[in-house]
Amino acid sequence: MKKCIFCEILNSKLQASVVVKEERFTALMDIHPVNHGHVLIIPNRHITYLHDLTEHEQTMVMNFVVRIQKALQLSEFSNGDSNLLINDGRDANQHIPHLHIHIIPRKKNDTLKVMMNFGARMMNFFGGAESLEKLNSQAESIRKVLPQKPLA
Amino acid sequence: MKKCIFCEILNSKLQASVVVKEERFTALMDIHPVNHGHVLIIPNRHITYLHDLTEHEQTMVMNFVVRIQKALQLSEFSNGDSNLLINDGRDANQHIPHLHIHIIPRKKNDTLKVMMNFGARMMNFFGGAESLEKLNSQAESIRKVLPQKPLA
Repeated sequence: MKKCIFCEILNSKLQASVVVKEERFTALMDIHPVNHGHVLIIPNRHITYLHDLTEHEQTMVMNFVVRIQKALQLSEFSNGDSNLLINDGRDANQHIPHLHIHIIPRKKNDTLKVMMNFGARMMNFFGGAESLEKLNSQAESIRKVLPQKPLA
Repeated sequence: MKKCIFCEILNSKLQASVVVKEERFTALMDIHPVNHGHVLIIPNRHITYLHDLTEHEQTMVMNFVVRIQKALQLSEFSNGDSNLLINDGRDANQHIPHLHIHIIPRKKNDTLKVMMNFGARMMNFFGGAESLEKLNSQAESIRKVLPQKPLA
């Protein structure tokens, strides 16, 4: 069976810039960011689809998304706005078959940049990866301001 | 205050192709579909952001998303795969300031078509709207096979 990159990261066999690993989900920096501060949320167990989450996990992940959005605003990667994207399944451009939720922080007038980067990714032209050093620093900025409790 | 298109649809003041209106959320066909069977889920009350949902609503909407995904598969708009997208806030390309979750059904090898349509929408070139007649027929196909109970 082919190794799963996200499972290897979760098992510390591959390096990544982790914002925080919680009980069921982990937030980490996307290595091919569509915009500065692009975060992924992944389940700690290997599942592919959104429908593989239990109801309890559905609630937990939504809470986690909202807390990360707040932290992206507080760390000034966004003005509070963001795009959330799930490519749910291989034919929906899911490149790693382990559920991941993209949180792309946005600011005023960055549409063209984001659209170009996003289009390139969708077409599989990933280009060079961002440096781990830079992503670690971004992860640290977000972690420092992450709300500890559910916001809903 | 400017009128909200989704509130007008929910109050039957504007026509739309509604799949189903449930207690808290409504599913309807996107009038500028990125792919055949493109559905929007909206809350029945006017809120703008994901973080405006209560925890109970977060769980409800996730369940609704998964049921719509299943119905899109059963009605053959997708092969089970889909893109989920929330443009959360105006600077994230949210054109109508009422929370809406895009569910874009996908099939093998439709990436180029979807990417072109998606890019055009992001850049605000919406083009012509799909006919209500066609969308009503799609809504009917999806409604007929929508699971009634939570799948998680």
